Amino acid sequence: MTISREDCLARDVADPLAFARARFIVPHDLIYLDGNSLGALPATAPARLADVVSREWGEDLIRSWNKNDWIGLPARLGARIAPLIGAGANEVIVADSTSVNLFKLAAAAVRARAPRRVIVSEIGNFPTDLYVLQGLEDLLGGAIELRMVPRCALMDALDDSVALIALTHIHYKTGEIHDMAAIDDRAHAVGALVLWDLSHSAGAVELHLDRDGADLAIGCGYKYLNGGPGAPAFLFVARALQPELHQPLSGWMGHDAPFDFSDRYRPAEGIARHLCGTPVVLGMAALEEGLKTFDGIRMGDIESKSAALGDLFLSLVAERCSDAGFIVSCPPSGERRGSQVALRHPEGYAIMQALIASGVIGDFRAPDVIRFGFAPLYTRYVDVWDANHRLAEIVAQRTWQQDRFRIRAAVT
Amino acid sequence: MTISREDCLARDVADPLAFARARFIVPHDLIYLDGNSLGALPATAPARLADVVSREWGEDLIRSWNKNDWIGLPARLGARIAPLIGAGANEVIVADSTSVNLFKLAAAAVRARAPRRVIVSEIGNFPTDLYVLQGLEDLLGGAIELRMVPRCALMDALDDSVALIALTHIHYKTGEIHDMAAIDDRAHAVGALVLWDLSHSAGAVELHLDRDGADLAIGCGYKYLNGGPGAPAFLFVARALQPELHQPLSGWMGHDAPFDFSDRYRPAEGIARHLCGTPVVLGMAALEEGLKTFDGIRMGDIESKSAALGDLFLSLVAERCSDAGFIVSCPPSGERRGSQVALRHPEGYAIMQALIASGVIGDFRAPDVIRFGFAPLYTRYVDVWDANHRLAEIVAQRTWQQDRFRIRAAVT
Repeated sequence: MTISREDCLARDVADPLAFARARFIVPHDLIYLDGNSLGALPATAPARLADVVSREWGEDLIRSWNKNDWIGLPARLGARIAPLIGAGANEVIVADSTSVNLFKLAAAAVRARAPRRVIVSEIGNFPTDLYVLQGLEDLLGGAIELRMVPRCALMDALDDSVALIALTHIHYKTGEIHDMAAIDDRAHAVGALVLWDLSHSAGAVELHLDRDGADLAIGCGYKYLNGGPGAPAFLFVARALQPELHQPLSGWMGHDAPFDFSDRYRPAEGIARHLCGTPVVLGMAALEEGLKTFDGIRMGDIESKSAALGDLFLSLVAERCSDAGFIVSCPPSGERRGSQVALRHPEGYAIMQALIASGVIGDFRAPDVIRFGFAPLYTRYVDVWDANHRLAEIVAQRTWQQDRFRIRAAVT
Repeated sequence: MTISREDCLARDVADPLAFARARFIVPHDLIYLDGNSLGALPATAPARLADVVSREWGEDLIRSWNKNDWIGLPARLGARIAPLIGAGANEVIVADSTSVNLFKLAAAAVRARAPRRVIVSEIGNFPTDLYVLQGLEDLLGGAIELRMVPRCALMDALDDSVALIALTHIHYKTGEIHDMAAIDDRAHAVGALVLWDLSHSAGAVELHLDRDGADLAIGCGYKYLNGGPGAPAFLFVARALQPELHQPLSGWMGHDAPFDFSDRYRPAEGIARHLCGTPVVLGMAALEEGLKTFDGIRMGDIESKSAALGDLFLSLVAERCSDAGFIVSCPPSGERRGSQVALRHPEGYAIMQALIASGVIGDFRAPDVIRFGFAPLYTRYVDVWDANHRLAEIVAQRTWQQDRFRIRAAVT
């Protein structure tokens, strides 16, 4: 039974999250399936940024640190993120980039678990995660050892030499979800800590960090959290671990009394010790508007719709592009997949270029993966249908071949 | 001979930088002498931010990384900062916070100078600098040793055990300027590297990093560079040192080919290896407008006016507040002082509160220092006169005493 465009329009009418699309400004001429790379613009963000720039910066100037509570932004935004990931308000704070936060927490974790010296991560993990762990390994010389193992060998790699296992919860390319509770349990059984990168999870699926025994987590502000380009990132430290964790980027904002201007660092009591430099106010203001797009949203609805949109896309590919040579390279079932799908094709790059030229924005990951994200707050079922329709036209008419040599010439 | 308000108005007329004030939006009802903490709003910043938010983010979305050259922001802004500090365009890049950049470069420096293990810094240096060096020392266990010595003992502390000396070029509280060339020479004579924190220097005085033999530097975007609250920071690595320096925050943006998504970090060739995570686009766009306020400005004029404004303020204090109990705690001569002055007074906090209530914004640094900054692009001689006039009134009428107990109650 074929899925019609009308079927999809009907699903949009019945969608409990349909109202949330009005919280964004999405260009009329685009089908934007790349919210997993950069979330769409919250409708309130332009006015908020204008106010922060012209009034808070321009008029109130330095007084804004107190008057407009700039100093409270990292904790306030952390408290907004906490319920989206199943954490307590005092367990999350916003600071720096995902990469920098990974360095902080990984360094703190191996120190807390010394003399254990092994960090386990996954081959094919998001590159910056591996690079940052490699940088820590290099810096500490022989004091720690990074073991990168395939996904299938992760559980067996956990033994009592392991200080930390650092994984991305939802894989950036395949969308495959790790079983957080199972890995936390296994790691804890051997005395290791777990650090989750939630960059492709927060705002896309329902998370229960506290329930699932998570120790540490980091995540990105500019994907599903809609915080704007290069938005600051967040980090999570479970309450019970907070007193024993000491991160090395001990800048003044993590000091117990930053404005005492003493010569000796003394870490703040709680999660604030994981701050480093001065908060990036403009980026945090934009992220706050992004986080407000989740006001009143049930994360269960988010997860259900993420899965349903991806399932719909894959069904339509099977129905209409079965001869095109695509290999589905994501879990076929929405339960094991984040809010994204991935297809492999030898001409993936050219196909994605043709799709973008037709007004459908997805992205390409080398060497041959085309990737579509379905940010559930603003993506409609009919968008999925229309995107697939254009994909089917492109592969049927092989229009991407016409552009192939030109595109190849342009990128080499 | 007393200095009259008319004298100051005449100096403003003759000021070769007078035209630059129109590049800023400064509130009419304020005398803003805190540009050393947060620079004023560039007149072009509101429109630029509105465009970045609504068009680049809202309409162009993910395509902006190429279309609007978001990916080029760190290097483009570095190239704008370079001439302000006497560096080559490929020696400066914008990234992260001052604190994070200090960690990167200090870690890279001690690694490059191993087996030397000593880092020298100054007692009373800006706290975050000391805290970050302490964090690095803790992380590396016994591998390095931080020696904090008084300013007068810095030269003698340099011997062949020293890997790095890390100093703030202009002291945040006293405004005293270190002799960059002399310290660079002495450090190089014993084989050590030098890392300068230029947070209170860049945009306030004329700098010649290349001429003076500087190795490494970091600096702040939100003070004299007018980049907005929490603006991203910059870092400098001398061209000759770039190949041998490896910083540990090896995120994907410092990779030689970030979009190859390989599992192994390979640092970029030049200054780009000092990037870590995704650039903070909103903050960088604002900083770019801040940097444009220096277009066509001679840094010699900047330095002359900084010195002249501070000298004027101190002359007026001597003339009109000589009985008020102030102790000048900055160098009396503009040549040895940054674009700021500092006065000590046992009731400094209450006096600054009274000044702020009267519309003169300076700041207070514990325990007893009131501090005034004279950002030379938008501060007028008449502003200095008016600020001093209000200060003289406040101390003559002892109006600050009326507020003292109320203020004390509010801050404790």
